[in-house]
Amino acid sequence: MLVKKIMIALGGNALGNSPKEQLELVKETAKPIVDLIEEGHAVILAHGNGPQVGMINSSISDMPFPECGAMSQGYIGYHLQNAILSELKNRGIDKSVVSLVTQVIVDENDEAFDKPSKPIGSFFTKEEADKLSFDKGYTMVEDSGRGYRRVVASPKPVDIVEKDIISDIVDKGHIAIAVGGGGIPTIKRGNELIGVPAVIDKDLASQKLAELLDCDIFFILTAVDKVAINFGKANQIDLDKISIEEALKYKEEGHFAPGSMLPKIEAAIDFAQSKQGRTTIISSLENAKKAVKGETGTIITGD
Amino acid sequence: MLVKKIMIALGGNALGNSPKEQLELVKETAKPIVDLIEEGHAVILAHGNGPQVGMINSSISDMPFPECGAMSQGYIGYHLQNAILSELKNRGIDKSVVSLVTQVIVDENDEAFDKPSKPIGSFFTKEEADKLSFDKGYTMVEDSGRGYRRVVASPKPVDIVEKDIISDIVDKGHIAIAVGGGGIPTIKRGNELIGVPAVIDKDLASQKLAELLDCDIFFILTAVDKVAINFGKANQIDLDKISIEEALKYKEEGHFAPGSMLPKIEAAIDFAQSKQGRTTIISSLENAKKAVKGETGTIITGD
Repeated sequence: MLVKKIMIALGGNALGNSPKEQLELVKETAKPIVDLIEEGHAVILAHGNGPQVGMINSSISDMPFPECGAMSQGYIGYHLQNAILSELKNRGIDKSVVSLVTQVIVDENDEAFDKPSKPIGSFFTKEEADKLSFDKGYTMVEDSGRGYRRVVASPKPVDIVEKDIISDIVDKGHIAIAVGGGGIPTIKRGNELIGVPAVIDKDLASQKLAELLDCDIFFILTAVDKVAINFGKANQIDLDKISIEEALKYKEEGHFAPGSMLPKIEAAIDFAQSKQGRTTIISSLENAKKAVKGETGTIITGD
Repeated sequence: MLVKKIMIALGGNALGNSPKEQLELVKETAKPIVDLIEEGHAVILAHGNGPQVGMINSSISDMPFPECGAMSQGYIGYHLQNAILSELKNRGIDKSVVSLVTQVIVDENDEAFDKPSKPIGSFFTKEEADKLSFDKGYTMVEDSGRGYRRVVASPKPVDIVEKDIISDIVDKGHIAIAVGGGGIPTIKRGNELIGVPAVIDKDLASQKLAELLDCDIFFILTAVDKVAINFGKANQIDLDKISIEEALKYKEEGHFAPGSMLPKIEAAIDFAQSKQGRTTIISSLENAKKAVKGETGTIITGD
């Protein structure tokens, strides 16, 4: 079997909702990841941070949002590297694993900054929301009848600041955990990098890193084994291997839900069309090993 | 001038007391560090986290202490790597810098666990303290008449889990920020690494990493330019270059305050006597460049 360089984007379901739950859950998460390492593949790992960064942001009121993101990278990265290392040792594999604080460059003229849409942190009453708007300049929106929340922009990732180090770590045979939560959003002004309150989609940031590291496979882990069209309907069809053109067609036809499967499909297409020979797989964590062998999952490829 | 591998332990005064203050202060901290990089030296950086981890621990009540430490590594590491990279770019130096989540092994039979002594987090009333003791098994002690605080053990560092990766990053010419706050204290049970609520002295953890990376110089940054004996007295003598024997003698004579200069001197001695040719320097950040040239600072060496 050919050895591949695989960028894995872990979904939120791999992490759980409390420190204790997360610590337990990552032990299970580690197993299919180490399955791939055991087969000889080079693995780079990214993870989401939505609930965690929201919790940090709600708990530490004076902490700016980019710093909350950095904290979540430390917190989640710690659990992941701890669990993966134990699983590697259980199987007698002598490799190291580390989490890296990762900054991701976004364009300060990205139009996303004109229409903040990503809710973060706690819910507030109308009065509290108005005060936050006035005092701190936050954009506050009513969220599903449950109260008001701050929304931030979700700009596109342009570059990964620490890509050279990540690349060297992977080349040395280690496992890198990077761009946690989509990375710390950063704009560039001259030689200065300035953290901004925003959320970069984790799948898009992982895709960018997969490109920059010249990965063979970009693996988007999600709750389902395969992507489907006509999802949840009588004529639902699970997709096996599809071309970029098919993926684009299904996307245009509106088969994929915004904020759910749509960003994954977009990241999947971006990677598959970035260079010949690059393949995106969307599947569940449990099926990771089989999916990389082409036995399950949805494969999007230009080949 | 000879190029050296230098492990730098940053003192708390390099960081400040709020996110905003820290972000500003690290820009100044970055300059003398980049001075050393500009001279061609390989630099590995560690930092304290006392106020920051205390703040995190007080704000997020259900977060276990090791996880709070991981968060502080993300938070402080982010600011440091951001500032150092900008300063490198200002000087046209094409190098990368990253912070690594670092776990430090301690011995679960370390006698420090029998007498927790390191205060962390908020102050509580006697009643609150009794409840925390009862509910969570915390050791609470009265602290300087200001109330009760939780105390944890301060065990000795035995090994650095991520040392191989840190070493490879440094060998590749990058700058690594590691063992933040002394590292996440971790005990080993079989193949499992278990985070424990404890605080490893930052200077001792940095010393351990300096040893493992085979550094030439271990640089302990502090508020003073030189270590002194008879400190603050009429017969105060600032120390220039001293032997290990002299350092041990002054230590025995009680010249160094516990919790302040004493752990630095102990770490300094440990490093200088770990292998021939190894030198510890204790000085201020401002004098880093001159001190490495032997023009100021207190130098402890076996040579």
